[in-house]
Amino acid sequence: MKFSELIDILHPQSHSLNNFPDCDPDITGVASIEEATKTTVSYIEGGKFASMVNQTQASGLILPLDEALQNAASNRGIAWIATSQPRLMFAKAIALFYQPFQPLPGIHPTAIIDPSATIGENIYLGSNVVISAGVKLGNGVMVHPNVVIYPQVTIGHGTVLHANCTIHERSIIGNNCVIHSGAVIGAEGFGFVPTADGWYKMQQSGYVVLEDGVEVGCNSTVDRPAVGETRIGKNTKLDNLVHIAHSCQVGQNCAMAAQVGLAGGVKIGNRVILAGQVGVANQAKIGDGAVASAQSGIHNDVKAGEVVSGSPAIANKLYLKVSAIYKRLPEIYKAFKKLGN
Amino acid sequence: MKFSELIDILHPQSHSLNNFPDCDPDITGVASIEEATKTTVSYIEGGKFASMVNQTQASGLILPLDEALQNAASNRGIAWIATSQPRLMFAKAIALFYQPFQPLPGIHPTAIIDPSATIGENIYLGSNVVISAGVKLGNGVMVHPNVVIYPQVTIGHGTVLHANCTIHERSIIGNNCVIHSGAVIGAEGFGFVPTADGWYKMQQSGYVVLEDGVEVGCNSTVDRPAVGETRIGKNTKLDNLVHIAHSCQVGQNCAMAAQVGLAGGVKIGNRVILAGQVGVANQAKIGDGAVASAQSGIHNDVKAGEVVSGSPAIANKLYLKVSAIYKRLPEIYKAFKKLGN
Amino acid sequence: MKFSELIDILHPQSHSLNNFPDCDPDITGVASIEEATKTTVSYIEGGKFASMVNQTQASGLILPLDEALQNAASNRGIAWIATSQPRLMFAKAIALFYQPFQPLPGIHPTAIIDPSATIGENIYLGSNVVISAGVKLGNGVMVHPNVVIYPQVTIGHGTVLHANCTIHERSIIGNNCVIHSGAVIGAEGFGFVPTADGWYKMQQSGYVVLEDGVEVGCNSTVDRPAVGETRIGKNTKLDNLVHIAHSCQVGQNCAMAAQVGLAGGVKIGNRVILAGQVGVANQAKIGDGAVASAQSGIHNDVKAGEVVSGSPAIANKLYLKVSAIYKRLPEIYKAFKKLGN
Repeated sequence: MKFSELIDILHPQSHSLNNFPDCDPDITGVASIEEATKTTVSYIEGGKFASMVNQTQASGLILPLDEALQNAASNRGIAWIATSQPRLMFAKAIALFYQPFQPLPGIHPTAIIDPSATIGENIYLGSNVVISAGVKLGNGVMVHPNVVIYPQVTIGHGTVLHANCTIHERSIIGNNCVIHSGAVIGAEGFGFVPTADGWYKMQQSGYVVLEDGVEVGCNSTVDRPAVGETRIGKNTKLDNLVHIAHSCQVGQNCAMAAQVGLAGGVKIGNRVILAGQVGVANQAKIGDGAVASAQSGIHNDVKAGEVVSGSPAIANKLYLKVSAIYKRLPEIYKAFKKLGN
Repeated sequence: MKFSELIDILHPQSHSLNNFPDCDPDITGVASIEEATKTTVSYIEGGKFASMVNQTQASGLILPLDEALQNAASNRGIAWIATSQPRLMFAKAIALFYQPFQPLPGIHPTAIIDPSATIGENIYLGSNVVISAGVKLGNGVMVHPNVVIYPQVTIGHGTVLHANCTIHERSIIGNNCVIHSGAVIGAEGFGFVPTADGWYKMQQSGYVVLEDGVEVGCNSTVDRPAVGETRIGKNTKLDNLVHIAHSCQVGQNCAMAAQVGLAGGVKIGNRVILAGQVGVANQAKIGDGAVASAQSGIHNDVKAGEVVSGSPAIANKLYLKVSAIYKRLPEIYKAFKKLGN
Repeated sequence: MKFSELIDILHPQSHSLNNFPDCDPDITGVASIEEATKTTVSYIEGGKFASMVNQTQASGLILPLDEALQNAASNRGIAWIATSQPRLMFAKAIALFYQPFQPLPGIHPTAIIDPSATIGENIYLGSNVVISAGVKLGNGVMVHPNVVIYPQVTIGHGTVLHANCTIHERSIIGNNCVIHSGAVIGAEGFGFVPTADGWYKMQQSGYVVLEDGVEVGCNSTVDRPAVGETRIGKNTKLDNLVHIAHSCQVGQNCAMAAQVGLAGGVKIGNRVILAGQVGVANQAKIGDGAVASAQSGIHNDVKAGEVVSGSPAIANKLYLKVSAIYKRLPEIYKAFKKLGN
């Protein structure tokens, strides 16, 4: 299709600027700016990628609202459109050209389904999946091969469970969730009480709730609590190898990058972003819209909207100053010694 | 049952105080303090949860030895008992009311068992489990669906292997262990020797030993060594996503929280506690009863009983001071500049 | 065999020194220095293990080029050879005595193979493996039980996939790779674009390439990107629980220890070593031969050959100074207060 046709499909209302129809090439796909070819469209997020406009082979570009970039593209005869959200428009372009793999509905003969399980319409159950007693699967659920679902689990419409993941007893998973390969939902929380005779195991009688639209990354784990529930709110997204301990309450539209770990009973508001390898200590509370930089160690409560960094985590602005000075400790120490210390 | 009956069953010898029979409601279950209802019993660990006594709907409470809390409960007409270990008594209360899911003994027809394997009595082998040559399973072992056991593995009586976990060749797992979903025991240690031609792979001819009562969390990994054994001592508990490298020797009754990683050859005593995301470097030794705070990075030996924090880890008391001052580095730096530096 | 025969087989050209035939015991196996017996050979890497020479039961030792150690061994009547790479020679000794478990070629009747898949010669497909449409497996491939391979995956000759791992659509895995148990290759990258309505999911239309000789540890994850490829170079080795995000480009002969995490679009040169729990931020570049200490947090580019430590990562030499002074912050602060601050 023509670049202009592509843009019309994507977001006719949002583009503020463009240089077609003067320049309106045929587009057959999408690519990164480095790997783009004559018939692909690519995108750039901001001015720091400016040099790439001068090197790319792309014939169409989605640009930010940056006149210098637009002029550079025009000068090279590249069709472009400018928008305040180039990455979002590029994501929509990918969705137009890419047909993701989806198995057809059907139940593989090797799937093992307990007679007391309830199964919706148009579902896919792959090879060797195990559906235990009392499980309820909504319409359009896709369960990839070798997934194991323990008893009394409920899964909403349109949810996808990728290969080799495990869903433990009593978990409640909403509509349109994605559980990626190897993830484990609803296993026993780590509950051991110290006694003079060693650890006394606290039974984990609770369960996990994943609300609609939650994604859990590969090999991530979400544990159930001793009593009550562990809950992940609507549309919250967890990356790979994330650990959510028993009794955590996570709000809506949060994102946690890979290898984040929440200890027991953590409470997280809505739209919170935790970057990679962040750790949050027992019972800490994090307010709506807060952000933690990679490897932060959060021991105390974080207020709504706060940005924190470091371990122990402090306000990001202070952290940036402290980090800069940190490297100068040898100079400071020398001065300290000179003072007769 | 009556609250007083419940307490009699739980621990008649240990309760020092109570306000029944004046107040002795019917109890049908357990709940957290926030979610408790009129017929549930809950617990409180210490004075900082005092406000919850004034809000909870629980009709029975397990309290610490704290008169203010006891008075608050009495004033609201809540039956209570006071003990030095409220969490332990609550754990025992859960065990009274909660019937955990346990499959009945039996061998699913899809389980694949090598003819040379030896299998005890009253065992459960779920769907699609794979038991390789020379494997020995004790009495009462439960192997959940899609578990794979490589050759020559020995597993003691009463041990439970959850779904999708993998036990590698020659591993020796004791009695009453629990291996949670997705965990991998006894895979090859990460042994590569640098040479001018790249990495030379060191064969990992050793094996892993898990002593009686060990638990390994979901998606955790315990590697086997080049020679000899990797050993986890009796009743030691590992949370999810923990990594134990080749040749580590871990003592008894330790606990490691999620995402802890031990590098090769680490030696850990008894009753050691490592909080979440702690890392321990090659060959480091940690003495009995030592504790490391979350995200500690332990490069050197830690003495018995020591509490360490930070990365690199230092004594916790010093760490607390240092962390407090850390935030004031900008002020210190300003003073340093004023001095003409 | 005699110790001298063993050494002849291992590396006749490299040994600079030895004390046989004066002392030439029979050797039946290999062991660690602590666990060695009268008929086993062991090794020592350097002088800090000197005391072990005086305690070991080994009758043969592979020593470094260190005369004191050689004399100590001679004095105790232990046969020894000295080489500049004792660990490498010991690794070769293990390979001589150890016969690793390898299943025989063959296809288990429970393996499920799509008719459109192409399968090489002498391959092993274990129980319950799932080979989807369009998959190509080279000669000598070994797929252990319960592995799931999504459609259109290509796997080269001699590659081994351990139990319960998952290979996602379109992944390209080279020759002689090892994917350890529970690892997930080629799952969707964590791509969500923030909008006023919440997260917009960016389809991940790309794929993962693992070049020849790559090893991926247990429960590690390598994600595919939105467009283009995520690539791990020839002979690079990843330990357990490592996360490689979408679009990363990793060079040849690198090693990443357990729990390392790379965020999206990281570019890593050849022979880079990342120790345990290192995190690397989005788009950071690391040059050839660079090294990062355990728990480093790399936010900015690292030059070729640089050694970095700490979070945020700084030059290792500076880090060592800073860390030493860090502990003295309380003293420095006291002096700062004395100055009237």
